[in-house]
Amino acid sequence: MSHLTHLNERGEASMVDVTAKEVTDRSARAQSSVTMSADAFALLSEGAHRKGDVLAVARIAGIQAAKRTADLIPLCHPLALTKVAVEFELCPEDHRVDISAFCRLAGRTGVEMEALTSASVAALTIYDMCKAVDPAMVIGPTRLAEKTGGKRGHWQLADAGIQE
Amino acid sequence: MSHLTHLNERGEASMVDVTAKEVTDRSARAQSSVTMSADAFALLSEGAHRKGDVLAVARIAGIQAAKRTADLIPLCHPLALTKVAVEFELCPEDHRVDISAFCRLAGRTGVEMEALTSASVAALTIYDMCKAVDPAMVIGPTRLAEKTGGKRGHWQLADAGIQE
Amino acid sequence: MSHLTHLNERGEASMVDVTAKEVTDRSARAQSSVTMSADAFALLSEGAHRKGDVLAVARIAGIQAAKRTADLIPLCHPLALTKVAVEFELCPEDHRVDISAFCRLAGRTGVEMEALTSASVAALTIYDMCKAVDPAMVIGPTRLAEKTGGKRGHWQLADAGIQE
Amino acid sequence: MSHLTHLNERGEASMVDVTAKEVTDRSARAQSSVTMSADAFALLSEGAHRKGDVLAVARIAGIQAAKRTADLIPLCHPLALTKVAVEFELCPEDHRVDISAFCRLAGRTGVEMEALTSASVAALTIYDMCKAVDPAMVIGPTRLAEKTGGKRGHWQLADAGIQE
Amino acid sequence: MSHLTHLNERGEASMVDVTAKEVTDRSARAQSSVTMSADAFALLSEGAHRKGDVLAVARIAGIQAAKRTADLIPLCHPLALTKVAVEFELCPEDHRVDISAFCRLAGRTGVEMEALTSASVAALTIYDMCKAVDPAMVIGPTRLAEKTGGKRGHWQLADAGIQE
Amino acid sequence: MSHLTHLNERGEASMVDVTAKEVTDRSARAQSSVTMSADAFALLSEGAHRKGDVLAVARIAGIQAAKRTADLIPLCHPLALTKVAVEFELCPEDHRVDISAFCRLAGRTGVEMEALTSASVAALTIYDMCKAVDPAMVIGPTRLAEKTGGKRGHWQLADAGIQE
Repeated sequence: MSHLTHLNERGEASMVDVTAKEVTDRSARAQSSVTMSADAFALLSEGAHRKGDVLAVARIAGIQAAKRTADLIPLCHPLALTKVAVEFELCPEDHRVDISAFCRLAGRTGVEMEALTSASVAALTIYDMCKAVDPAMVIGPTRLAEKTGGKRGHWQLADAGIQE
Repeated sequence: MSHLTHLNERGEASMVDVTAKEVTDRSARAQSSVTMSADAFALLSEGAHRKGDVLAVARIAGIQAAKRTADLIPLCHPLALTKVAVEFELCPEDHRVDISAFCRLAGRTGVEMEALTSASVAALTIYDMCKAVDPAMVIGPTRLAEKTGGKRGHWQLADAGIQE
Repeated sequence: MSHLTHLNERGEASMVDVTAKEVTDRSARAQSSVTMSADAFALLSEGAHRKGDVLAVARIAGIQAAKRTADLIPLCHPLALTKVAVEFELCPEDHRVDISAFCRLAGRTGVEMEALTSASVAALTIYDMCKAVDPAMVIGPTRLAEKTGGKRGHWQLADAGIQE
Repeated sequence: MSHLTHLNERGEASMVDVTAKEVTDRSARAQSSVTMSADAFALLSEGAHRKGDVLAVARIAGIQAAKRTADLIPLCHPLALTKVAVEFELCPEDHRVDISAFCRLAGRTGVEMEALTSASVAALTIYDMCKAVDPAMVIGPTRLAEKTGGKRGHWQLADAGIQE
Repeated sequence: MSHLTHLNERGEASMVDVTAKEVTDRSARAQSSVTMSADAFALLSEGAHRKGDVLAVARIAGIQAAKRTADLIPLCHPLALTKVAVEFELCPEDHRVDISAFCRLAGRTGVEMEALTSASVAALTIYDMCKAVDPAMVIGPTRLAEKTGGKRGHWQLADAGIQE
Repeated sequence: MSHLTHLNERGEASMVDVTAKEVTDRSARAQSSVTMSADAFALLSEGAHRKGDVLAVARIAGIQAAKRTADLIPLCHPLALTKVAVEFELCPEDHRVDISAFCRLAGRTGVEMEALTSASVAALTIYDMCKAVDPAMVIGPTRLAEKTGGKRGHWQLADAGIQE
C-alpha cells in the first residue's frame, strides 16, 4: 500500500467511501491495560471482590464509548454495532488490570476503532477512579488483538509476529 | 489514602462533591505515543512534511475529545476548559509519534482526565488513519506527565521516581 | 426466563449480540403523563390553544431523545429509527397531560426503549416549562403500551392483564 | 405567577436569562421508582446481592444523564454540576426499586431538572435490563422531593401537602 | 493583527488560552435568513399563523445548537450560556424568513460563535421542513450583527460600514 | 405538493415514516462560502499555502458535523453515512473561500441535510478562526447543488433555473 487511505491525492482528509461494500459479519477485539502501585491495586481489587463498582463503571464506560467512536474519531463511519463486551482480568503479581474489548457488526466496514476506543475509555475510567491514590498509573500498551470479516478476512496480532 | 474517592462507604460509584472547593488555576499535561512499522511511519511523516493532514486531524480530534471528557468518563465533572493544546513529535529512529496534550482551567477540580483523554483520542486517530498500512501499531504507554493547581499543588512524573 | 439477558454468566453487563437477527419491521408505543395543579394546567392549556409552544417544545424534545436512546441507556444498541411521533392529550378534569410516543424501525432489535425514552423526555420538558408555577408536578406512570415485530410478535399492555 | 417563564410575551419558547443571578450553592433531590413482577424483582435483587450489576449500570446511566440534561431538555441552561449521586432501595414487598437522585451546583440556576433527568434515566435503564422478563414494568411516579438554594430557598414535597 | 489567533507559531491549531481573562457580561446577536419559492413560503407562513410548528421547531433547534457550539466548532471554548433566544420575521414580499439569534454569558470569552451557530441551525431546520416543496431554497447571508462585552467592548455591523 | 411533509394533519411536527422505503444509493452535494476582508483572506491563504491548518480544521469540523446532523436537525433520520468529503477553493479576487460538501449513503432517505450541515459548519469554523481579524465576514449563500438517488432521482440547482 503506497498511500494512506484516509487522505486524497492532495493529502486532504476524507471519509473513505464504503457505499459499495457488502454488508458482512465483522468483529474486532482490542486489548489495553492499567498498571498501578500496590496500594492502588489492593484498593481496586478489594472492591472488585466485594461489589465490583470500579470495574462495573469502567465496563459501562467502555461499552458506551464504543457507540460514540464515530463522534470521537473524525474519519470513522457511523456504525450500528450489534454487540459490545468489555472484560477485565486482574494480574496481582504486576498490579495490573488487563482489558479486553470486543465489538461485532453486520455492516460495510470494520469495527477495529470501536474496539480500540472501548478499551481505551475503559482504561481511562479505571485511571480516573484510582488517580487520587496513584497519579503515576500507566495505561497501555493498547492494540488490536484480532479482527474478522471484510475483504481481508481473519487477522490476529500473533500472525504479525507479535506475542499478544 | 485508605479508600477510593469515587466510591461511597457502600462501594457505590458517585461523583465527588467539589461544590465547596475554590476556583483556582489548574493545568495538566499527559503523554501518549503510537509506534508503527517503518512503512506506516514513512507515509505518515511524508504527509506531515508536506501537508500534515494526519497530524492535523489527530490534533483536532484530541482537542475535541478534551471537551467531551465528562461525557465519556462517568464520574468526571463537566468543566469549562480555558485552554487545550495537542503537540506531536516524530521519532524516526523508533517509527514512533510522541503525543503531548495540555489542558488548563480556572475551576474547582483538576484536568488530568481531560489531558489523558485528549492524548488517547489523538493516538486513536493516528491509528485509524494508518491502520490499513499497519494494523499492529501500538498505542501508549499513556500517562500523566505533570499537573499544577489544587490542594496538592505541583506534581510531575519525575517526582514519582519515573523517567518521563 | 431464568436470567437477565443483559448480564453474562458472571453477572457482568454486556450488550446482547443481535448480529444474527433478521432485519424486520418493528414498532413500539409508550405512554407517560404529567399531572399538575389547576393553575399550571390552565397556563399550559391556554398556550396550547393559542400557539402551543409548551407542547411543541416537548414534542421536539421527545423526538430528539428517541434518537439519543443508545447514548443514554448503556446497553441499548444504536438504531437508525425510521419514524418517531409524539402526541399529547389534555385531560382538564385531572389537570393532566397524557403523552404517547411511537417509534418504528426496520432493524435487528426492538424499539421499546426508544419509545419509553421519548415519552420520558417529553414529560420532563413539560415539567421544566411549568415548574416555576408548580414544582410538585408528578411524572408518570410511564410504561410500554404496545410493541410489534421481532421473534415474539405483537404485545400489548392489555394482554398483560393491565388496563392502559 | 400569571405566565410561564419559558415563553415570551408572544408565546415563543426562550431560555430564561440568568446572567444577573448570583452564583450560590444549589441542590435538588428527585425520586422515581420501577415496579415489576415478582419474577423480574427476584432476578434483579439476586444479582444486586451478589454483584449488583443492574443497579451499578443504572447508577452510572443516571449520573451521566444528569450531565446531559441541557442537551436533552431544550430550555435548560448548561450547568457545571459539582456533585451527582444516585441511590436505590429495594422494596421486596411491592417488587419495586425506589430511586433517589441528588445533584448539587455552585451556579446561577437550580438543578431540579438534572435530578429529575438522572432519576428518570436510571429508571429507564432498570427497565431496559429487565424488560425481557417483564415488559409490563411501570416507571414512576417521578417527582422532585426537595430543593435548596436560589431566591426561593428551601422547598420540599412535604411542604406542598404531599406525602413523599 | 498580523496572525490568526487560533494558530500557534508553527501554524498548528490550538484553543486560545482564556484562563486569565475576567468573567464579564458578554452578548452577541447573529442573523441569517432562508429565501424560498412562493409556494414554500405560503405553506410555511400559513402554518405560522395557525400553529407555528415549523418556526417552533426551528427555534428549539437553534436554541439547542447554541448549547452545542463547542462540540461542533473545534477551537471554541465550552461555555455555560445564560440566555439564548431565536426570533423569526416573515418577509412575504421576498418569500424570506429572517432569523435573529441572541446569546448571553457571564464568562471569559465571547459568544459570537454560539449566536452564529444558533442562527445557522435554525435556518437549516427551516430548510429541512420545507425542502420537499422547494429544494432550491437559499440560506444566508449569515453574519454577526452585534456583540458586547470583553476587551473590545461594543461592536456592530453598521460600524463596519455594512448596512445590516 | 399541498402540505409540508414534516407536519401532520394537525400541524404538529413529526419524523416522516421511511420504514417501507428501499435501501438505495443516495448522494448530495451542498455549497457554501465565506467572504472576508483582504487582510483576513491574506492570513488564511498564506497558512493554506504553508501548513493549511485553518482549512484542515474546517474540513474535519464539516465531516464531523455531517455525522451529527440527526442530532442537530430535529426531524432528520439518523443515517449511517458511507462517505463524506469537504473541499475548499480559494477565490483571491473576491477574498472568498468556496466550500463544497459531499455525502453518500446506502439508505432509506436522502442526505441533503447532511451535506448542507457539513458545509455550514465548515463555514462557521472558518469564521471562528478568522473572526479576530474580521468580525464582519459573511457566510453563504448556502444551498443544495445536486442530489441523486431516491424516488425523484437526479436533481441539480441548474435544473431549477439557478446558476450555481
